[in-house]
Amino acid sequence: MTGHRTGLWLVGARGSVGTTAALGLAALAQGHATAEGCVTAAPPFAGLGLPAWDDLVVGGHDVSDVSLTKHAEALVDAGMVPAPLLAATAHTLDAADAEIRPGHRGLLAPGESQADVARRLAADITGFADRHDLARVVVVDVSSTEPIAEHVPEHDDPDALLAALEESDRVVLPPSAVTAWAALLAGAPYAGFTPSAGMGLPALQALARDRGVPVAGQDGKTGQTWLRTVLAPAFTDRGLRVLSWAGTNLLGGGDGATLADPEAVRSKLASKTRGLRDLTGSEVTPLHIDHVPDLGDVKVAWDHVHARGFLGSRITLQTTWSAHDSMLAAPMVLDLARLLALAHAAGVAGVVPELGYFFKDPWGSDRHAAADQADQLVRWAVRLGAA
Amino acid sequence: MTGHRTGLWLVGARGSVGTTAALGLAALAQGHATAEGCVTAAPPFAGLGLPAWDDLVVGGHDVSDVSLTKHAEALVDAGMVPAPLLAATAHTLDAADAEIRPGHRGLLAPGESQADVARRLAADITGFADRHDLARVVVVDVSSTEPIAEHVPEHDDPDALLAALEESDRVVLPPSAVTAWAALLAGAPYAGFTPSAGMGLPALQALARDRGVPVAGQDGKTGQTWLRTVLAPAFTDRGLRVLSWAGTNLLGGGDGATLADPEAVRSKLASKTRGLRDLTGSEVTPLHIDHVPDLGDVKVAWDHVHARGFLGSRITLQTTWSAHDSMLAAPMVLDLARLLALAHAAGVAGVVPELGYFFKDPWGSDRHAAADQADQLVRWAVRLGAA
Amino acid sequence: MTGHRTGLWLVGARGSVGTTAALGLAALAQGHATAEGCVTAAPPFAGLGLPAWDDLVVGGHDVSDVSLTKHAEALVDAGMVPAPLLAATAHTLDAADAEIRPGHRGLLAPGESQADVARRLAADITGFADRHDLARVVVVDVSSTEPIAEHVPEHDDPDALLAALEESDRVVLPPSAVTAWAALLAGAPYAGFTPSAGMGLPALQALARDRGVPVAGQDGKTGQTWLRTVLAPAFTDRGLRVLSWAGTNLLGGGDGATLADPEAVRSKLASKTRGLRDLTGSEVTPLHIDHVPDLGDVKVAWDHVHARGFLGSRITLQTTWSAHDSMLAAPMVLDLARLLALAHAAGVAGVVPELGYFFKDPWGSDRHAAADQADQLVRWAVRLGAA
Amino acid sequence: MTGHRTGLWLVGARGSVGTTAALGLAALAQGHATAEGCVTAAPPFAGLGLPAWDDLVVGGHDVSDVSLTKHAEALVDAGMVPAPLLAATAHTLDAADAEIRPGHRGLLAPGESQADVARRLAADITGFADRHDLARVVVVDVSSTEPIAEHVPEHDDPDALLAALEESDRVVLPPSAVTAWAALLAGAPYAGFTPSAGMGLPALQALARDRGVPVAGQDGKTGQTWLRTVLAPAFTDRGLRVLSWAGTNLLGGGDGATLADPEAVRSKLASKTRGLRDLTGSEVTPLHIDHVPDLGDVKVAWDHVHARGFLGSRITLQTTWSAHDSMLAAPMVLDLARLLALAHAAGVAGVVPELGYFFKDPWGSDRHAAADQADQLVRWAVRLGAA
Repeated sequence: MTGHRTGLWLVGARGSVGTTAALGLAALAQGHATAEGCVTAAPPFAGLGLPAWDDLVVGGHDVSDVSLTKHAEALVDAGMVPAPLLAATAHTLDAADAEIRPGHRGLLAPGESQADVARRLAADITGFADRHDLARVVVVDVSSTEPIAEHVPEHDDPDALLAALEESDRVVLPPSAVTAWAALLAGAPYAGFTPSAGMGLPALQALARDRGVPVAGQDGKTGQTWLRTVLAPAFTDRGLRVLSWAGTNLLGGGDGATLADPEAVRSKLASKTRGLRDLTGSEVTPLHIDHVPDLGDVKVAWDHVHARGFLGSRITLQTTWSAHDSMLAAPMVLDLARLLALAHAAGVAGVVPELGYFFKDPWGSDRHAAADQADQLVRWAVRLGAA
Repeated sequence: MTGHRTGLWLVGARGSVGTTAALGLAALAQGHATAEGCVTAAPPFAGLGLPAWDDLVVGGHDVSDVSLTKHAEALVDAGMVPAPLLAATAHTLDAADAEIRPGHRGLLAPGESQADVARRLAADITGFADRHDLARVVVVDVSSTEPIAEHVPEHDDPDALLAALEESDRVVLPPSAVTAWAALLAGAPYAGFTPSAGMGLPALQALARDRGVPVAGQDGKTGQTWLRTVLAPAFTDRGLRVLSWAGTNLLGGGDGATLADPEAVRSKLASKTRGLRDLTGSEVTPLHIDHVPDLGDVKVAWDHVHARGFLGSRITLQTTWSAHDSMLAAPMVLDLARLLALAHAAGVAGVVPELGYFFKDPWGSDRHAAADQADQLVRWAVRLGAA
Repeated sequence: MTGHRTGLWLVGARGSVGTTAALGLAALAQGHATAEGCVTAAPPFAGLGLPAWDDLVVGGHDVSDVSLTKHAEALVDAGMVPAPLLAATAHTLDAADAEIRPGHRGLLAPGESQADVARRLAADITGFADRHDLARVVVVDVSSTEPIAEHVPEHDDPDALLAALEESDRVVLPPSAVTAWAALLAGAPYAGFTPSAGMGLPALQALARDRGVPVAGQDGKTGQTWLRTVLAPAFTDRGLRVLSWAGTNLLGGGDGATLADPEAVRSKLASKTRGLRDLTGSEVTPLHIDHVPDLGDVKVAWDHVHARGFLGSRITLQTTWSAHDSMLAAPMVLDLARLLALAHAAGVAGVVPELGYFFKDPWGSDRHAAADQADQLVRWAVRLGAA
Repeated sequence: MTGHRTGLWLVGARGSVGTTAALGLAALAQGHATAEGCVTAAPPFAGLGLPAWDDLVVGGHDVSDVSLTKHAEALVDAGMVPAPLLAATAHTLDAADAEIRPGHRGLLAPGESQADVARRLAADITGFADRHDLARVVVVDVSSTEPIAEHVPEHDDPDALLAALEESDRVVLPPSAVTAWAALLAGAPYAGFTPSAGMGLPALQALARDRGVPVAGQDGKTGQTWLRTVLAPAFTDRGLRVLSWAGTNLLGGGDGATLADPEAVRSKLASKTRGLRDLTGSEVTPLHIDHVPDLGDVKVAWDHVHARGFLGSRITLQTTWSAHDSMLAAPMVLDLARLLALAHAAGVAGVVPELGYFFKDPWGSDRHAAADQADQLVRWAVRLGAA
């Protein structure tokens, strides 16, 4: 039964997305907000047995000590969240904050193995499930993007990986992947909402399948990339040939600072343009991310599309998208919690390609067209819900 | 068999869209151009028995005496068409121009009936078919928008309409509808690419069904409206509530001048916003069309979308679309000729809702979402082509 | 001496601009805000003897009963003003609200003359000056735009006007002009920040000169029009010929609702395009104002400029401007209060063309180029301040 | 006397800017075109004794062998120049092409000194002057941007530089500066329209002063940067504080390819943002140049300005500028030829700060505000012309 109480375990719970998700969930559960931005609030998803808003309980990992409520106050100061809404949800936020455990920074104590770390993280999750009598816990990674991890053979081989993880003082996985492995140890469905490796490594995906845990990723398709995967297939349907698709992102906030690190941004930019190239066939897709601190959490994205029309005629489309980044991501995190709970209850195991709608770089799927993915998502959920 | 030679009878053949379609078709048939902008050039439509480009022969009606070649020279001067392309296709354009007959201006000679006019127009079409040994002729109305016609009861009643048409000196139909009736008399499939009444009257659609003629309309969905029906469903899929969708069109050219007439523009604006309101549920959709002669045939459209996201957060999207209007419309006219030929060969009669993809205000369908319509179109064509 | 205490009498004090000006002035005077948006806060205006922020006292007329504080709370709810700023200034706002008297709605009591009304309004102003021991009071009209008044000969002839004003039951002036006359009766410098007639009538301007009162207008140049008068001269300097300049305004708020009245908008649109036509020589300047309530006080303006460059080459410029309309207007109102106080102290009488920088349709000047006007303003103020 | 025949010696004559300037000048001289884009065609410059269009004769240096006419044909194919205009000017272009001599690539023959190279280049210029009986020759560098040159002490010391130039096999100057020195040797006024070092080195500017030659630079302010220096001062005049100014350039063409070289682009980006930072005080000015080959010579620039208004309110301005880059630059090159001829005739020597209007990084001036520079330019020209 999916109607049972479900945990939402946020890796990076005290960041902007985590805070917004926790606060917003409390607001929805208490009837202080309507569910704009939630895909699963639409009619086709009604009656499928998804957990209700007030069935969801929040906990998580974070390396930060700044409480959810503290972060939420910053959102109020920035004009993102009305003060009364924070007042109404502060009690629930405090409860969630009490369920946040220290996250993994990637360091090992002398003599420690990554398996030791993962077991400790998994115990946090199972302890949370026990305390709240949860039917299941869904782990969603919303932490900051980590640098691209160097590939080693163990990433492709489950047995070799398991062995390596037990070696003291050996770092075979990047932190996000240790966390992903912890989710599997805890039997928790998992979504990778960041570009970090996480459950993206083939060995971990194989282990997810073996252990009967549904997983989905990677890198939430929240704003500009979503828009691009809405528009690009439409050009193709019309027979209009995209010659170039250039874009710029301006963002402040924590994400902006992280992405000012060229190494971190590389994985982001790669996953942002991959779908676009597949959809249009064009290789001319320059893209920049600029850190503009004064914009705060607002992300502004400009795209310039140049296409060739009938008899070589020139077509241009410009788009300017402006939105609070966390406000786009948070409701999708809640959607993923609900949908992965449904999948888990239905016995789905391993990578779930039908959740590709939510991701820039969907595991197990080469579909990128948003309308197509939305259609696939609904059909899949209805099929599971009817079972 | 759809492989046979097919006529494309353009009502308003000497206008910008007509000229571009005729010139472009010649260029495609002779291999001087590739088929960007043609929906039916995509892989799913291959092998379905659509007429090939060199199976199509152009004729038409027009109230203008300015030849196709003359108009095409203006397109060259405006930088829309390369001079060598006109040189290569001039011979074919001259041949098409020789098949253009005087169009109906809406006036009756004393003692004449609208049925007389329609029979004369139908004879033009059948004569064309005979001269070129055509398996069928598809009529596409690409003439200037006419003012909204006053509704009379005969518009809803086929028998009453047929009787009224025979009355001398009585004007029961607007000119575009007389032309539509002429198409039915000639047994010709028909597409209404303008907002004018044409085959949109219920009585004429009933007659089309009775006479076994497939018809489709209305008002080509070429630019801004197409873009809106791409984007609006995407907002809905995401659960983002559109609060307002404001737009402005700037256009020069003949169409711009016509639409500077507030009466003519009224029907255009109504059909442009109808789909948007259906798709978003928002009633705040102000829209303007401005005549900016210096832009020539380029149409520039700006849209501003304001949506409500998670926890009431503000989302805005602006789009600026710039394209040569005739270059968007012409390939869709060719698509409709091919698809209606397919439908006619397959015995489809009356309104074809599956062609809704091409129209702002699709007859027989309340679907407006472009991706949904594209999907429906392909399935339909494949089904007919396989039969 | 301009250092003395100065009254700022706002006609329409309880509207958005009035409320923002009163609240903002209190914030500036108390050091809770910095003076962004105030022209006179720049270095060239220092040391000229302009009234300091805490020399200014607010009163006014309004037809509304909704208090300043009430309106300010709405600004807080809309996210425009931080709650702590209202808390800090509420006391001052209450004091200002206590100095707001019933405004003139344009109606006469039986047997009353417009001169009677004006004397009553003037008495409100002089009473205010007495109570606060003010060196002078500057009247600024920030009330809603009124419909264009029909012209009558008395509007051009001071003596005839004075006589007509004394006739019982005769309406020779629109309400805004009665208020302007009241300012003259009270010896108060006056600025017309709206497109309404106000002091724009030649007879009133002549009376201002006779009575030694400096006056300036008309229609605050706050956003899109300001931007246009920045850009248009730059095109001219470069020798680039503007072919068309099309624009759209989207606005919610009270102003948006008022301007949804086609009659009211006519005067606004006329004054918005007049300068542009002068500056560019182009007559193709279509402009729309759309009421989009969900935008609140944010005004979004899109402009599309098409210019002809070297050898006929095509140049386009698009601008999208987004700002809180009242936040643009309010600091300019404060600037005008300071500058007209300076002018009055220096003995300037009648229309002050050097204040044209602040207005869409500057009285006494045909300069519209913003940089040119800014230069003229500084020179004028420095000259007066040095005297 | 400035009325005499004047040479325009283009360094990089066969590039896009050079070709457009040569073709456009021929069109102007023959009355086939009007002078849009030419600053000096405006009324204030009439009667000042500037050379007329048909007083100007074109020659130049280039490292390319592709003729002006050949390049002009490419402009016709790209739809930038109408075919009849090329036909009408081809004869003049051929004559100009016959006056193009091999440019300096930066390489020395064994035993050769840079002074030898400069003397050869100077002889090309004086030979041109002799053949055409020219009163003077103005050299304008419109060649491709070269990488930033390493600074050596000789760049600051005229005597040391002159000595170093005579050393065999020693490269003390980058190619653009050798060319600049050649101009001085030939006594030719000089404008540096590229970001390359050219006459920007202090030693060369001192030599220009000593030799009585007026020089101006650097890096033509043609499009986005011009627009920024129009807008930024307007924000300052209004007291609006610019927080960030982010921009993106998309361009194809030769310039686009050159600027895809990160080393070359560095000097360009530096000079593009320098003025903006001075004008706004903001340090947040991220800027990108992307090579988008399909755009051809069209440059598209998007800017996003975020400013702080009254009471901290948010103001945003976006601009999208689209123009043919060469069509912006070429008329300014003609302007500089005329104005430097005027300066030379009037005996102006060394750096001319009053020509700062034309440059991103004006030598001898820290003014960047376009309106201010335009004003300064007119006053200067009128003063010289009256002398």
